[in-house]
Amino acid sequence: MDRHHRPFDKGLEELKAKLLDMAELAEFMIDRATAELVKRDATVSAELVESEQQINCLQIDLDEVAHTLLATQQPVANDLRFIVAATKINSELERIGDLAINIMQQAEVLLAQSPLKPLIDIPRMAELARKMVRESIQAFVEADVLLAQSVIMNDDQVDVLKNQLVRELLTYMMADPRAIERALALILVARHLERIADHATNIAQDVIYMIQGRDVRHPKTRRG
Amino acid sequence: MDRHHRPFDKGLEELKAKLLDMAELAEFMIDRATAELVKRDATVSAELVESEQQINCLQIDLDEVAHTLLATQQPVANDLRFIVAATKINSELERIGDLAINIMQQAEVLLAQSPLKPLIDIPRMAELARKMVRESIQAFVEADVLLAQSVIMNDDQVDVLKNQLVRELLTYMMADPRAIERALALILVARHLERIADHATNIAQDVIYMIQGRDVRHPKTRRG
Repeated sequence: MDRHHRPFDKGLEELKAKLLDMAELAEFMIDRATAELVKRDATVSAELVESEQQINCLQIDLDEVAHTLLATQQPVANDLRFIVAATKINSELERIGDLAINIMQQAEVLLAQSPLKPLIDIPRMAELARKMVRESIQAFVEADVLLAQSVIMNDDQVDVLKNQLVRELLTYMMADPRAIERALALILVARHLERIADHATNIAQDVIYMIQGRDVRHPKTRRG
Repeated sequence: MDRHHRPFDKGLEELKAKLLDMAELAEFMIDRATAELVKRDATVSAELVESEQQINCLQIDLDEVAHTLLATQQPVANDLRFIVAATKINSELERIGDLAINIMQQAEVLLAQSPLKPLIDIPRMAELARKMVRESIQAFVEADVLLAQSVIMNDDQVDVLKNQLVRELLTYMMADPRAIERALALILVARHLERIADHATNIAQDVIYMIQGRDVRHPKTRRG
């Protein structure tokens, strides 16, 4: 970092700190939205709404810091890739916050009715998704390619759990029309958790691109 | 553009051209995925898979052009905001392509069974979503704030149609267990179309930010 003035390093540290704050909030939101559902505690909604507003503010701040760094410091090579990755990860974390709010909305539908079934797979999926978010951000902060790769591999487990759960919920729906609305709400929760895991996977791919300068977002794409 | 060398302007034109190509592909994919569903024509899937690969290639190319411009030309102010907006819009269009593939996957589920009901609302939602994508990109290319604002306002119409359709499909599910799988697939299609409209809304918000330097992504967020 010889060629840099101190304000530039300070800017990069600020980006990193803000992303860590966002990631912590995103993880907290996944945890709380799932708790609302599992513990049937509607008081959690207020916390979640507040956390989402905080994530939104952080998103705007982080974009501003990144744009100022790009505009005033003319970063190149590694620093440029770091800043570009930070802005992408910023969007992913904001979307994870949105998805936690979507889970909360389905939880509210479910809390208005009696429980359909004991929730085993959903907390398990939520724990996996949350771990993927945490590790993808850790991979970014520590520039750890192996950790990023392991996040990407975990995505399959979440998909398997989701498919299993959707199949089970379809049988509930078929057996009893009164189960339909609740089973649909749980299917949507499972899909939201799957998408949170997808966003963590996107972050892990951005980390690998940042480190290796190689795009792993579309591994199956043959380039002309 | 006095202060620029010609290679820089050429780079900006290249970004614009690639985004227009991506937007055209994204619109095409929305149209074809809906056609697969409405005309019950499974041969469309191959086209869609190919288009998605093209969008993925364009996404990678576009990011590379943007990063090279940022790294070599040190753009400031308007040009910087244009490039940053282009990279954000790039991600939105790629996600729209993914959602068209998700619609295709549900169409494949539906084509394996007899039709549940005549599809009226879904093509209407698809047409609205497609128009929002087209106009959001037009707003970007022509730096048209009013058009971007009208895109954002159209989003409510898509939400209303979706909620209406979900309610109707729930009644199908309740009336006949054999309708459940198909009704669920149609609910997911409606949600995918709603998300396409959300991505067009994101693009329109990025356009307004680019032009006005003011963030409209979270209008309800009070900033400390």
